[in-house]
Amino acid sequence: MARRLVHFFGNGTAEGHGGMKEILGGKGAGLHEMTRIGLPVPAGFVISTEACEIYLTRGGEALRRAIGGELARNLARLERATGRRFGDGRDPLLVSVRSGAARSMPGMMETILDLGLNEKTVLALAERTGNGRFAFDAFRRFLGAYGSVVFGLPRDSIERFLQEARLRSGVRFDTELPAPALQEVCRRIETHISESTGRPFPQDVEEQLWGAIEAVFKSWMAEKAVTYRRVERITGLPGTAASVVQMVFGNLGETSGTGVCFTRDPNTGHKKLYGDFLMNAQGEDVVAGIRTPMTIQKMRKRLPRAYRELERVRSILERHYRDMQDLEFTIEEGRLYMLQCRTGKRSPRAAFRIARDMAKEGLIGRPEAVSRVTPRDIERLFYPVLDPKVPRRELQGRLLATGIGAVPGAASGEVALTARAAEEAARAGRAVILVRRETSPEDVAGMHAAQGVLTATGGKTSHAAVVARGWGKTCVVGCDRLSIDEERDRLRIGERNLRSGDQVTLDGTEGVVYEGTFPLVRPELPEAYREVMSWADSLRRLGVRANVDTPYDARKAVEMGAEGIGLCRTEHMFFDSEERRLAIREMILAQGAEARERALARLLPFQRQDFEGIFEAMDGRPVTIRLIDPPLHEFLPHGEEEQRKLAERVQLPIETVAQRVEQLRESNPMLGHRGCRLCLTHPEILDMQVRAIMEAAVAVRRRGVKVLPEIMHPLIMDPKEFEILARRTRQAADRVLKDERRKIPYLVGTMIEVPRAALLADAIGALADFFSFGTNDLTQMTMALSRDDSGRFLPDYVDEQRIGVLPDDPFQTLDQAGVGQLVLWAIERGRRGHPGLKIGICGEHGGEAESVRFCHRAGMDYVSCSPYRIPIARLAAAQAAIESRRRENPRKAGAARRTRRGPGDGRSGPIHGGRQRGRRHPVAQA
Amino acid sequence: MARRLVHFFGNGTAEGHGGMKEILGGKGAGLHEMTRIGLPVPAGFVISTEACEIYLTRGGEALRRAIGGELARNLARLERATGRRFGDGRDPLLVSVRSGAARSMPGMMETILDLGLNEKTVLALAERTGNGRFAFDAFRRFLGAYGSVVFGLPRDSIERFLQEARLRSGVRFDTELPAPALQEVCRRIETHISESTGRPFPQDVEEQLWGAIEAVFKSWMAEKAVTYRRVERITGLPGTAASVVQMVFGNLGETSGTGVCFTRDPNTGHKKLYGDFLMNAQGEDVVAGIRTPMTIQKMRKRLPRAYRELERVRSILERHYRDMQDLEFTIEEGRLYMLQCRTGKRSPRAAFRIARDMAKEGLIGRPEAVSRVTPRDIERLFYPVLDPKVPRRELQGRLLATGIGAVPGAASGEVALTARAAEEAARAGRAVILVRRETSPEDVAGMHAAQGVLTATGGKTSHAAVVARGWGKTCVVGCDRLSIDEERDRLRIGERNLRSGDQVTLDGTEGVVYEGTFPLVRPELPEAYREVMSWADSLRRLGVRANVDTPYDARKAVEMGAEGIGLCRTEHMFFDSEERRLAIREMILAQGAEARERALARLLPFQRQDFEGIFEAMDGRPVTIRLIDPPLHEFLPHGEEEQRKLAERVQLPIETVAQRVEQLRESNPMLGHRGCRLCLTHPEILDMQVRAIMEAAVAVRRRGVKVLPEIMHPLIMDPKEFEILARRTRQAADRVLKDERRKIPYLVGTMIEVPRAALLADAIGALADFFSFGTNDLTQMTMALSRDDSGRFLPDYVDEQRIGVLPDDPFQTLDQAGVGQLVLWAIERGRRGHPGLKIGICGEHGGEAESVRFCHRAGMDYVSCSPYRIPIARLAAAQAAIESRRRENPRKAGAARRTRRGPGDGRSGPIHGGRQRGRRHPVAQA
Repeated sequence: MARRLVHFFGNGTAEGHGGMKEILGGKGAGLHEMTRIGLPVPAGFVISTEACEIYLTRGGEALRRAIGGELARNLARLERATGRRFGDGRDPLLVSVRSGAARSMPGMMETILDLGLNEKTVLALAERTGNGRFAFDAFRRFLGAYGSVVFGLPRDSIERFLQEARLRSGVRFDTELPAPALQEVCRRIETHISESTGRPFPQDVEEQLWGAIEAVFKSWMAEKAVTYRRVERITGLPGTAASVVQMVFGNLGETSGTGVCFTRDPNTGHKKLYGDFLMNAQGEDVVAGIRTPMTIQKMRKRLPRAYRELERVRSILERHYRDMQDLEFTIEEGRLYMLQCRTGKRSPRAAFRIARDMAKEGLIGRPEAVSRVTPRDIERLFYPVLDPKVPRRELQGRLLATGIGAVPGAASGEVALTARAAEEAARAGRAVILVRRETSPEDVAGMHAAQGVLTATGGKTSHAAVVARGWGKTCVVGCDRLSIDEERDRLRIGERNLRSGDQVTLDGTEGVVYEGTFPLVRPELPEAYREVMSWADSLRRLGVRANVDTPYDARKAVEMGAEGIGLCRTEHMFFDSEERRLAIREMILAQGAEARERALARLLPFQRQDFEGIFEAMDGRPVTIRLIDPPLHEFLPHGEEEQRKLAERVQLPIETVAQRVEQLRESNPMLGHRGCRLCLTHPEILDMQVRAIMEAAVAVRRRGVKVLPEIMHPLIMDPKEFEILARRTRQAADRVLKDERRKIPYLVGTMIEVPRAALLADAIGALADFFSFGTNDLTQMTMALSRDDSGRFLPDYVDEQRIGVLPDDPFQTLDQAGVGQLVLWAIERGRRGHPGLKIGICGEHGGEAESVRFCHRAGMDYVSCSPYRIPIARLAAAQAAIESRRRENPRKAGAARRTRRGPGDGRSGPIHGGRQRGRRHPVAQA
Repeated sequence: MARRLVHFFGNGTAEGHGGMKEILGGKGAGLHEMTRIGLPVPAGFVISTEACEIYLTRGGEALRRAIGGELARNLARLERATGRRFGDGRDPLLVSVRSGAARSMPGMMETILDLGLNEKTVLALAERTGNGRFAFDAFRRFLGAYGSVVFGLPRDSIERFLQEARLRSGVRFDTELPAPALQEVCRRIETHISESTGRPFPQDVEEQLWGAIEAVFKSWMAEKAVTYRRVERITGLPGTAASVVQMVFGNLGETSGTGVCFTRDPNTGHKKLYGDFLMNAQGEDVVAGIRTPMTIQKMRKRLPRAYRELERVRSILERHYRDMQDLEFTIEEGRLYMLQCRTGKRSPRAAFRIARDMAKEGLIGRPEAVSRVTPRDIERLFYPVLDPKVPRRELQGRLLATGIGAVPGAASGEVALTARAAEEAARAGRAVILVRRETSPEDVAGMHAAQGVLTATGGKTSHAAVVARGWGKTCVVGCDRLSIDEERDRLRIGERNLRSGDQVTLDGTEGVVYEGTFPLVRPELPEAYREVMSWADSLRRLGVRANVDTPYDARKAVEMGAEGIGLCRTEHMFFDSEERRLAIREMILAQGAEARERALARLLPFQRQDFEGIFEAMDGRPVTIRLIDPPLHEFLPHGEEEQRKLAERVQLPIETVAQRVEQLRESNPMLGHRGCRLCLTHPEILDMQVRAIMEAAVAVRRRGVKVLPEIMHPLIMDPKEFEILARRTRQAADRVLKDERRKIPYLVGTMIEVPRAALLADAIGALADFFSFGTNDLTQMTMALSRDDSGRFLPDYVDEQRIGVLPDDPFQTLDQAGVGQLVLWAIERGRRGHPGLKIGICGEHGGEAESVRFCHRAGMDYVSCSPYRIPIARLAAAQAAIESRRRENPRKAGAARRTRRGPGDGRSGPIHGGRQRGRRHPVAQA
């Protein structure tokens, strides 16, 4: 027997169920499921998405051959179930025909109500209901929908007959039009259809039905629907289903009505019905907004019986689906009919509350509660945003340009074009936005002083983005309509010329720059957040650490839930003050090891002090400190003026300084003299840094605080490099401990950020106490992508409509297909060379949910990310652990599985928002 | 029983043999082997290198305990064999004590002759020989050697007694001193020794022997020896052996003498004895150069019997060792004694002739003949060099500075500071040396016009080096004492100020810059070269192709033996003339696809014409053409003047041009918008290039020439990229073939030069017709090493005495440990996805012997390199194939193996010069 293409439901039984979304669409599956569990649902049937695929690939004739018999049989069943006949001259069956795909695409596809009306049946309907006005109103609605949806006439060309009728009758609302006027409207629309299309409006109801089914199927390929799917990245679906359902009428008078509601408040998560109700109206009237609906609470007073019935339904549905539902219903002469039910969209705040409450109510387990919130929910909880009360029009009027939103949130302040200017303005207590072509470590102090950062170049993981994200500072990058004239202290953004000091506002969520300032609001963390996150913490296996460089940030990180520091970059410390900058510059300009050591000796107390602060802030948690990493030229000033000043301070000719800067210039600094190469060629830097770390550890330990320093070497690509550096590191550390007569355990480990280090991980692992994957650089080298430059083509690479080579920005989401292979290889090899080797990640990916899941599967011990991403990492780590357990023990996860059968909008999977496009390494999938 | 540490030889038997170089040293093993095969060798014994290790690690007492018994037993055997007794008052046994390690270290370690003389035995010797002069001369030599070697006195402090004696006696030569004068010299030296050291000269001969043995062993660690081993990269040896051999005397009168000779002429390879002979002299006199020796041919007349004996020995040795030998011998009263025999060093020319001749003589097989020449031999055959007749002193006087010798050979010419100036000078017929800070593709025309290239920065694989090597043009890079003031048309090299137009000479072999011009000589290819190379061609499995960009170079490549083009870079073509430069620049500056296409249309005929020329030159051989690769900014002028000119030509404001250049600037261009990314964002470039290729193919085919175009996409990192580009390539190619109604087979393949491409080689391989490894970029990315910048630390990385992380410069010799893993992985995966996939290499490594061997083992189909490296690749490919066959069939290779037992200087392995340091991937070794 051929596969069933039409699925009936009605009178308490259904051929399908809620798990058949792929075949019945979300709406269709919901109707079947609701029927199955005994809820009041009008009878009907669903023509499957497979039938749609037949129509789209092989045409209308093929569709009729494929489903003709089934359609006829199901129409007959529907007639039996309702006791009415389709096209009957006395008591006609009317139906709605609606689209509905497996993923919700609100408003994208077509709906036709009141199908089955014609010149004959409309009179029968008028007679049966004793309401001519109602019958002709239904007919004109049907004619209008059919004319536009099936015949493709412009809506306006049909609407105008109603307008004319209102004018003629001198009334304001359609509801005031008398039956004859509506009948006249119907006649005119019919004439308009046949004149415009050369085909008469079909009086044959079966022809009407075929026309509507084809139109619904065709709407799957309508431009707006295709665009929507592209934007929402909906792929792999065969088409839409079409549901044909007995019409029920909410517009049969004052005991009828129609409504849309949520089973809990989608803004706050509060457990009460939340929605709108319109008396004496059909569904579309609620949405159309012509009449103002009442709240669902008011309906309680107006139709108390129906309301109690709705409460009962809501309770059944929540127990059944174990999630908050978004419902559509109609009340026909006091009787409730459920027309739709799907998992409801909700605010981040509500997501936490609903998850927490449902777990407490016993509807779901804690793992499921943790799975119900998304990383995006967390993100949106934290960032200050433009006050939503600001009118859209005002925003539009002050828009200067758009760029890439690198760090969400919003910030206002005066423009500063140099780091120094930003620092000065901040010192004077003024809010400031640092605006640069691109940022470099020289700008770090200025960035720190600023409220937000705007750059002309770079992508979401450019220097500006990474640093700003670390501080949770709003940042817009890649604003290519920005050009800066630093000398004249001017800039141009879009069409406007500004000067430094002018006020601008950044919206880092949207990636927009506005002129002037706007009010901002900072959301408060909901109660439920802490509770759900504590459950997440108890469920995850992965540790979560922070990437921070200062005591202040370290404290912030602990507040956000960090269990240690995975990456403390020591170079930012060199920019923290004029004095430090001078010392590091003197070190670089020093001729010979002795002069270099003198300059380093001046840096030592600064570094020691920083480390002491960080150790104290972390209070016994492990702290991974990376030794100096960037190429030395990044520490030197590049402008002539700055160079002159430096030359004076260090008493060298300006030419010497300029020459040294020039000498240090590199064609590809990313692959240049940096990372551990610096300590190999200048071991005295290593000595100073290790000494500062261990002296700080001793000092803090003396004050009774536990310390766990982990010293990390960057850019290792060969076991020999690590061997040399680890030996020297241990010598320098042990010297301090011996001098101070203290025993403090410490580790010496390495970044794995060069492909060759991953390839030789067995030999390196045998020597190292730990690995930390630097997936930013590993991605750059493995993919030959410069983070700072790739903005020119990477957006097109990720956009399927342009070049579409990559599923995601690999600097956002770890490239599992390529870079992931190296990571897995290195973990396997590293642990082969050193069983139990401690392994973590400290690239930006450590705070991105999909990548954290990969880290869990890959068997890492921890992830590390900027403080503001720590909650995301904690959640993602917990969700990954829950997933793993479900995979390992599917029976136990059965209950959770069943909830996934629920109707949905993409929220129903245990982990939301995780796109599954692109290749995955088999090990990573296992 | 403990391991034997002293090995006896004498009277036709020997405890050791020629294969025991590691234990007996080269010299010791040679003495044993010569004794074994019945040659006249004085008796003696060798104290093994293991004994040396005991001495060096545990000291003299331990040495005496370890070998004391063995030494006594062997001394006794030596006394029995010679019929004389050590220290005997009537007929004393005298011995020489010499050092000798497994690898020859000429002049680096110590030798003591005539040991066993003391105040008593010298008189006995005088009496026995009836020659007091001889006896005291021997004694004073021994005293001198002992005083300096064992007691560490300065040679001068001893030599002066001889001078004083000559002055006192009023004679010119030592040989004229009478016996009493010499006796007096001996007394004075003895007194000097005891006064200077506080210890008397030992009269006890066994004490003498111990002292000498320890001194020889100690000399292994002498500073000059350590330095020598570092420079020559000799590692892994435990120490030197010490041979103790009965003295024979070449200074017993006119039937005695001593000589050094080669069994064939080491300069020409001619089959005749070649060397020097000194009548009535001891070995050291030949080397000391105080008396002028006669040629070995003259000895024939003077000592015909001894000469015939020598001829007999030579013939036995060549048949035995099957290689040319370097001999030392002494004739004592008409009787020939062989003192040393080792494989002889030879000129490149002689290497070819000897290999060819020996194969023809049946001494060795052709595979062995091919194994006997080295890549360095070939290199040195080809390059023009400074006329060796120029006196060293003159060179020294005109030396300006040293840098890195990137391309061997030599060139003279006037300094040009810009590519344009170089072109102009060349057009005017003047020889020119292009001197730049560093070169870029903009300079290519100027480099082509120049005789040689000198840069201030960069290493052996910088842009300058790679391009110059491709043309076989002498090139010195990384000359850090060079600074250029382009504006004032001046430069400073070392201490001298020059201006453009001044003459300089580059020695690319040594990496030196001289002022003025020098005569150069270009060596002629020896006859034997072609013969040996044709044998190599018939033995190799790997194909050898060329990296060339012009018809001229293509012809050159065919001449050098290329079987196709493995890499034709299309971008150099864009710099070939002012017109082309303008067209490509217009293309880049074009606003919108249409304007871009117009500019491209102007480039089309140029490209087509280039391809036609190349196809014709290659005459049916496959030609791999790489589509545009470098970032676009490399095509634009960076100087303001040039930009202004361009702006005028393209009728754009200078600001627009400058802005575009600025926009295209990248922080890490290596990882930027280049390679296939250009054709993905600007597919019209691909269309133009493919059209030009196929139209050229059609045109050439019409003229009856076969063509095999292979179109190659660079920088692929994802199968999707290749899929998109391959589809478009095939569309564009097929369009031309359809329009022209021709069928021409062509291939579409990809570079594998990004680590990710290697990781995803299965998916990419399934789509591609061929892979070509771009190991230059693959090395850069896998190791995080920028070719252009790494000069700052890479030399230290390779220098074991500095940082010593890497065994070789990975841009010279493929990094098998790391990059090699990716290569092997990609080959295995690629062929898994596409059985029989054609695979080659087109990085610089394709012309480096060790890397070519790796390519053979890895199963590649061909290597490709610059024309001047093709003979090296052919040879290395043959040697790799021979090695494989030997490994697979060791019995058949037995004969060849045995020759490796020969004495040697590092030339004796089947493949010379291939250092085996560093890790190797197991597969690569198998």
